[in-house]
Amino acid sequence: MDIDIGNALSEVASPGLSRSNLERLDEQVTAAHERIEAGRAEDEHGYAALNLPTETDPDAIREAVEPVRDCEALLTVGIGGSALGAATIVDALDTDGTETVFLDNVDPVWVTDQLDALPLENTAINVVSRSGTTAETLANFLVVREAYEEAGVDWTEQTVVTTGESGPLRDLVDAHDLPSLQVPDGVPGRFSALSSVGLVAPAVCGIDIDELLAGGAAEADSLTGSLFDCPAYAYGAVAYALSTRGVNVNAMMPYAESLETFAEWYAQLWAESLGKDSLGQTPVRALGATDQHSQLQLYRAGPRNTMVTFVDAGERPDRQLPETDIEELAYLGGSSLGELLEAEFAATEASLANAGRPNVRLELEAVDAAELGGLLYGMEAACVLAGELHGVDTFVQPAVEWGKKAARGLLGGGEFAEADAVTGKTELRIER
Amino acid sequence: MDIDIGNALSEVASPGLSRSNLERLDEQVTAAHERIEAGRAEDEHGYAALNLPTETDPDAIREAVEPVRDCEALLTVGIGGSALGAATIVDALDTDGTETVFLDNVDPVWVTDQLDALPLENTAINVVSRSGTTAETLANFLVVREAYEEAGVDWTEQTVVTTGESGPLRDLVDAHDLPSLQVPDGVPGRFSALSSVGLVAPAVCGIDIDELLAGGAAEADSLTGSLFDCPAYAYGAVAYALSTRGVNVNAMMPYAESLETFAEWYAQLWAESLGKDSLGQTPVRALGATDQHSQLQLYRAGPRNTMVTFVDAGERPDRQLPETDIEELAYLGGSSLGELLEAEFAATEASLANAGRPNVRLELEAVDAAELGGLLYGMEAACVLAGELHGVDTFVQPAVEWGKKAARGLLGGGEFAEADAVTGKTELRIER
Repeated sequence: MDIDIGNALSEVASPGLSRSNLERLDEQVTAAHERIEAGRAEDEHGYAALNLPTETDPDAIREAVEPVRDCEALLTVGIGGSALGAATIVDALDTDGTETVFLDNVDPVWVTDQLDALPLENTAINVVSRSGTTAETLANFLVVREAYEEAGVDWTEQTVVTTGESGPLRDLVDAHDLPSLQVPDGVPGRFSALSSVGLVAPAVCGIDIDELLAGGAAEADSLTGSLFDCPAYAYGAVAYALSTRGVNVNAMMPYAESLETFAEWYAQLWAESLGKDSLGQTPVRALGATDQHSQLQLYRAGPRNTMVTFVDAGERPDRQLPETDIEELAYLGGSSLGELLEAEFAATEASLANAGRPNVRLELEAVDAAELGGLLYGMEAACVLAGELHGVDTFVQPAVEWGKKAARGLLGGGEFAEADAVTGKTELRIER
Repeated sequence: MDIDIGNALSEVASPGLSRSNLERLDEQVTAAHERIEAGRAEDEHGYAALNLPTETDPDAIREAVEPVRDCEALLTVGIGGSALGAATIVDALDTDGTETVFLDNVDPVWVTDQLDALPLENTAINVVSRSGTTAETLANFLVVREAYEEAGVDWTEQTVVTTGESGPLRDLVDAHDLPSLQVPDGVPGRFSALSSVGLVAPAVCGIDIDELLAGGAAEADSLTGSLFDCPAYAYGAVAYALSTRGVNVNAMMPYAESLETFAEWYAQLWAESLGKDSLGQTPVRALGATDQHSQLQLYRAGPRNTMVTFVDAGERPDRQLPETDIEELAYLGGSSLGELLEAEFAATEASLANAGRPNVRLELEAVDAAELGGLLYGMEAACVLAGELHGVDTFVQPAVEWGKKAARGLLGGGEFAEADAVTGKTELRIER
């Protein structure tokens, strides 16, 4: 991953960063880098995630998925960080044709539709929950097991489990002697794409997980004490510095359909890690060129609170446009879809710069396993750096606990004061 | 559509609105409503969109799609407002099983994958562009035609065109005697869901377009001069008033997988209509319960610049959870996925209120054609009202023109100063 931060400079954008701002910021980056390296050296909670490219054992993953390697379809049961990394990788890269479904919601209509459409006798199950008690995941897993049983399929023959050292899923592994992997210690879900959590599904789909890890490792090698030498830190530092200047929205806009899910993964990483203590940037998932026709008006002419992060997807197979005798379209004839997409990208980037709106460009050579591994690692490192600079606790998500307790209380899973608060809602209803 | 704005009151949230704020705001709503009604009476540009439920002729749409009504698949070629309304409706409602693909991007790899996977001999084409010159749409249409020709399929036998009175697509209609519909006058793309632009695809898929229009008409009947009597105006007024108090992010979070695309449609409506003159709220597309595990931390503990718009999807078929002997999960046994989803929704809504974060709840009786028609119309009316209150020109999108000219210039489609600006980019590249 390379980066171009020219359009975030104050000579282009407002808010923007002067070159001397960047020099001073770099001193903070140096100090933050030392903190990060110390955390990595001790495998401290969270920082340990930045060691995954060399700590993850791809052979163990391959061994665990071997029994289901020839399945026609793969059903991943997980939510949040237990689904998004795997989904990002599978959606981005060429697979061996295995159909993939991510059961990451408990909408009953949708769950039933998904299960009805799958050839269960030939569908592997990949269930992922660190605690083994995540309500949505375990509810879905109960439903999935029942569907397999009703279809006369032995789910224990085609299930792979990724979970912690103990808990209900670990007990299940022991009871049925299921192939299993362990969620690594000290790695929050949103930082686990390059661990067993994110790599089981790609491994089942025939994606080269060694290359993903190698790409992450190469990006890890680029972590130095200066934003001027390290694309990941340059990104994290620029996002941080713009954030302190009122840029509290960050639109992630890859120019590749295959990276649409990457923008969702990024949104979780950025929101849960940095959205605390009244700080944080709201990540917005966008897609080029499509969202030029949806969001660009706002990004160019709305409040000056937004930065756009473009992802240039690099080389890809192209498709020529036929010549046309339609006069108004003659200029497209002989060109290609790829050239059109590149022109749209360059034009949109310049359009924002022209309006003084800060934007940065992440550059990939291509959307392949090594580059994607580098991109995921790079965004994680950028996020950790931004967290250090903001002084927040990047690796926790305390604000989601209240709702979890309330939901559990509402379902009769114990006494929780939070559940009582739900029933006292202030209403002001307006009916049609 | 009903609405509950209780959690946007200042007795709950900060920023929030006091009841006396709302009383004073209602005077502005009354005046804005008069302006809107005057615009509707004269079919003025933009305001005309609010007359669509009774102006759109469903018989003409049915007649145009009759030749392709039995196709196995439908390929819609359009982008932005020419795709999102149709996609929202098709994704939300039960169809007759017609496979639908929306070719709304020019990524060459993805376009090729889509075309390769479709049974072209039995796939209808629905091409939509008001001007008939939208670069992405016309480029894709050229590619689609070539693919049909290479497959030996006569595309002229299975194409429906929706376009303006003149332009290349209209010429094509005349040359090949294609079934066609006209984009109604005075209706910007993002307001065209309840016109031929949004209804051709649903009609091909066997969706009851009369019910969609009837739902829109019922919502239209609810437009009165007071936010206390009109859910749509209540929504627009609250969003506006919060926006003036620094709430510049609006997360649209339906609790139904079938409404995921609706959130994208809403994002375009909100961003392009209100994102101008340094004003506007950034619409964020979220999905319950999934994004509780991704965005909720930020919404609850990040900057106080965000409101969440929940959509309660109402009645739906449920799916029971089997009993389980796993102790930690016993509380889920005998419950249902629907009850779990509802508990998550109530808990999340209360969780935000508990943290003083403003949120509102749109309530549907169910996700059916009439309710969806009402929801789309209601959001459009809310948006028009918010535009009046902000004093912006809701129905234009001038900021996207610069980039269109630049792209065209880059592709050799004429001399544009904007294209020259692209080549002068300020660079600050950091390489790995």
